[in-house]
Amino acid sequence: MTTTVNATATAAIWSGVDAGFSVGTLPLPGLRPGEVLVRTELATICGSDLHTINGDRPTPLPTVLGHEAIGHVVATGGDVTAADGAPVSDGDRITWTIGTSCGTCRRCLRGIPQKCLSVRKYGHEAIDDHWKLNGGFGTHVHLVAGTGVVKLPQQLPATVATPANCATATVTCAARRTNLTADDVVVVLGCGMLGLTAVAYARDRGCATVIASDVDPARRELATLFGATTVVEPQDLAAATSKYGADVIFELSGNSRAVQSAFDVVDLGGRIALVGSVSPAPEISFEPSGFVKNLTTVVGSHNYRVDDLVEAVDFLERTAVQQLFADLIPAPYPLADIVPAVATASSSTAPRIAVHFP
Amino acid sequence: MTTTVNATATAAIWSGVDAGFSVGTLPLPGLRPGEVLVRTELATICGSDLHTINGDRPTPLPTVLGHEAIGHVVATGGDVTAADGAPVSDGDRITWTIGTSCGTCRRCLRGIPQKCLSVRKYGHEAIDDHWKLNGGFGTHVHLVAGTGVVKLPQQLPATVATPANCATATVTCAARRTNLTADDVVVVLGCGMLGLTAVAYARDRGCATVIASDVDPARRELATLFGATTVVEPQDLAAATSKYGADVIFELSGNSRAVQSAFDVVDLGGRIALVGSVSPAPEISFEPSGFVKNLTTVVGSHNYRVDDLVEAVDFLERTAVQQLFADLIPAPYPLADIVPAVATASSSTAPRIAVHFP
Repeated sequence: MTTTVNATATAAIWSGVDAGFSVGTLPLPGLRPGEVLVRTELATICGSDLHTINGDRPTPLPTVLGHEAIGHVVATGGDVTAADGAPVSDGDRITWTIGTSCGTCRRCLRGIPQKCLSVRKYGHEAIDDHWKLNGGFGTHVHLVAGTGVVKLPQQLPATVATPANCATATVTCAARRTNLTADDVVVVLGCGMLGLTAVAYARDRGCATVIASDVDPARRELATLFGATTVVEPQDLAAATSKYGADVIFELSGNSRAVQSAFDVVDLGGRIALVGSVSPAPEISFEPSGFVKNLTTVVGSHNYRVDDLVEAVDFLERTAVQQLFADLIPAPYPLADIVPAVATASSSTAPRIAVHFP
Repeated sequence: MTTTVNATATAAIWSGVDAGFSVGTLPLPGLRPGEVLVRTELATICGSDLHTINGDRPTPLPTVLGHEAIGHVVATGGDVTAADGAPVSDGDRITWTIGTSCGTCRRCLRGIPQKCLSVRKYGHEAIDDHWKLNGGFGTHVHLVAGTGVVKLPQQLPATVATPANCATATVTCAARRTNLTADDVVVVLGCGMLGLTAVAYARDRGCATVIASDVDPARRELATLFGATTVVEPQDLAAATSKYGADVIFELSGNSRAVQSAFDVVDLGGRIALVGSVSPAPEISFEPSGFVKNLTTVVGSHNYRVDDLVEAVDFLERTAVQQLFADLIPAPYPLADIVPAVATASSSTAPRIAVHFP
């Protein structure tokens, strides 16, 4: 298949809190072996993009932000293999891992490739001579070697597929790391994009009881639509879990009181996945003999492996609430409107605001 | 095989801190289906026995203390099956789980039979009309239905085999729950009976680097004999782990500062097994975003499953340091000397003091 490639891409280049965004052209790369050039279909603005834009998370500059994105392959640097073992070909609709992994360092060999010693993360790195299109907020994304590529079914709505490589895969990873099984009573703390995903994923995996907690009544209502069997305000969590149990707790809010509450309510033999805490926060405390005799497990989970992304895409394809996921994302903004798009993402109750590239 | 059974057993009956021990006779039980009568070969005094004797752990009274014990089968109530699926026969040399499990309650079905909703634990229950010989400090032990029975090789020294059903199986359980693998750098905090076992078990499992920490120089020396590749005082733990890493940390001391230090030194992707904290202690604290980004796992581990006891016996049979385990236990006391035996256990540096039944 022959594809005509334009000579340049358009991207929203982020130069820091003071300089802000400038939408401009960048040259398309000469692809090295193992690299892929993608024509972006849709990108969503993740909470961590907003952290960077608000100055709460330092990032090398200038950069192209955005890491939740999908697109179509325009060109490959030689043979590139997708996660399913099939070759990556021009025209393939794909998603990709948020970061690269070398596959050979101690961390990669120990099953934590997301912490590869030479990891490069999309939407997190400075533009350099070779790697300019390194984030999702542009017409093209330049995938470098070591990126895990996962093919997307053509019929999966873009609004559903786009969060796969951040929100969804982070949830499937946390579920894997806590050995989620169908007979677990599940508690979800925080009902934003990750929390709603966790609710739907737990139901998809066969869990009959899913208790969701959030301070926001609108989010609790959404959680019910996504499959939560009980929704509570945080102050009612103890009562709900004393009634139903709490075998696996997904802490997705990052709120310290919520994190602490997980330790207070976890059932005997239960597992707590701490996921939402990604900025320094007050310390959490627990009494060790209670922890030991309760056989508690606590897992810190950050990012994911490529097999978690494969499971994320499979889940989004099979979920009974696919339309609800699509409905979470309002009409997308064009790239030229990245500034109002970000403003809306900061102020809106919608879990995700999207940028498209028609 | 026909065995002549004496009509009575002799046991050290514990009636509380004030009344203390009285060594006297108890009738042998009429065995119900699934029960086993054992002639005790050797029993060791565990730290938790001492907690009870010192008044630090409440227990129903009167009782027969002792749960680390081995013996030979004298009689069975109908067909009884050992953990390997073979029938339990008169004359078999056996060890058994510290508690019973029903196999059908929610906890048993969820893989935590040590917390069975109807668990009865040896050395922890009041004498009643049917179950009198319910601890290890007696000539006979009456195993009730739901006890996991593991056969012992005849050539395994009694001093080596006796701690299997408490100290050793607790360690193999913690190793299972932290997914210990040969390429892990292991840290052992506390070098008493459990710590020395953990050091030897990690080496047995192929771990090349085992760092052991204890305040006591004599215990550090023992840890080296058992296979520790580095031994440190607690204040030098951070330096040692910054040099070698800390993938799996066994916290076996129960000391709060040691528990806290595990959180401070655990490497990226590392797992902490909290085991030693069995009495209420000061709270432990950690900063959640560091925990999340470090992909830390913390597992509370208390007691064990029958498969952990099978692995414990296998380990004690194959360990390269079997003689060192035997040497940990000085010449045993007769049951009549239970009071001086306990006094020695409380004051001695030996990890275990034994009682025998010649």
